[in-house]
Amino acid sequence: MASAPMRRDRKRQDVSDRLYQAARALFVARGFEATTMDDIAAEADVARATVFNHYKSKAAFLEEWGRQRRIKVAAALSAGQADDLGPSDQIRHYLRELARLNVESRPETAALMDAAMRHGDPLRGPALETDLTKTVEHGQQIGELERHVDAAVAGRLLAAGYFATVLRWVHDDPAPFDLVEQLDDMVSLVLHGLVNAPAAVARSREG
Amino acid sequence: MASAPMRRDRKRQDVSDRLYQAARALFVARGFEATTMDDIAAEADVARATVFNHYKSKAAFLEEWGRQRRIKVAAALSAGQADDLGPSDQIRHYLRELARLNVESRPETAALMDAAMRHGDPLRGPALETDLTKTVEHGQQIGELERHVDAAVAGRLLAAGYFATVLRWVHDDPAPFDLVEQLDDMVSLVLHGLVNAPAAVARSREG
Repeated sequence: MASAPMRRDRKRQDVSDRLYQAARALFVARGFEATTMDDIAAEADVARATVFNHYKSKAAFLEEWGRQRRIKVAAALSAGQADDLGPSDQIRHYLRELARLNVESRPETAALMDAAMRHGDPLRGPALETDLTKTVEHGQQIGELERHVDAAVAGRLLAAGYFATVLRWVHDDPAPFDLVEQLDDMVSLVLHGLVNAPAAVARSREG
Repeated sequence: MASAPMRRDRKRQDVSDRLYQAARALFVARGFEATTMDDIAAEADVARATVFNHYKSKAAFLEEWGRQRRIKVAAALSAGQADDLGPSDQIRHYLRELARLNVESRPETAALMDAAMRHGDPLRGPALETDLTKTVEHGQQIGELERHVDAAVAGRLLAAGYFATVLRWVHDDPAPFDLVEQLDDMVSLVLHGLVNAPAAVARSREG
């Protein structure tokens, strides 16, 4: 039998979840800018003060959205035994799962990704970038990835490339390209580089 | 002797320049959000309607700022005979000149880059991305860069990496890293890739 503090925690979590679902639905239906904290209170059937008690600003819902997405991706990756993969493949799978989630929920992605760029800190919010940087560091430790590359630069580049690609993808309707494919291409480019290696090798042999 | 239409054009350009200088100074001093079109009119000593006649919104000043930066960079590149360089070096020099301009005018960059991200369309505004994509295409045509890479993916990645790096650099005071160096590292990474090529070659020889 749950103790009183446990019941209180659970109840608090239930209210928090209900507020998040209400906010997300309103952002998709009306847009982030047009939705007020009062609208969210009304939709979730709670007092206005309760909303602020759980989420200090509308931007806090965007942070929660990002957090929920990363949880879903982590679950998909561990179900797919991604932990057994090498770091390059882990990076590829991570961004592929994020891409699939975006494709599955395109209207939500369109409403929230644009708002996150304008009102949140997705480029500076370090969650995705930090995850990717850690994976790169691991790859460097085991010798799969170049040790002289700054892992933070690589993590930032991958995260920025991800956000830019998704923003471009949601901007036009219908979608201007296959998101999963373009993110795969982006990851391959970061992994293997743009310089034509045989040509460069040929040049260095001539030199 | 200038004709009447030429004098009118020149006068219009003079007013436009004065408005741009006034707006830029106010954005740096007070911040983009806190500056109104009325403030800009007062600072430039013109009527409010004149501001709207030249710039339809505050965001239009951000577009002009981006345009002016690209003009300065193009001038620096042609003075440095960058046209004689190969496409990889052109990309490197282009972003290095942009970085130098940002370093020279850090308070302006901080005020305007953040506003451009929130109120303009720097990630979706195609100017930098288009320039970089064209340079990649040229590199592919002459065989210096990999032909199987989608040039648009490469251009987008480089532009996104540039914006993310500059945003991170202006976000903390003092600057958390050397901007020119980090952008150089980013370009090298995109050119040469993250995978440890000798290790990959060793693996393919074993296979």
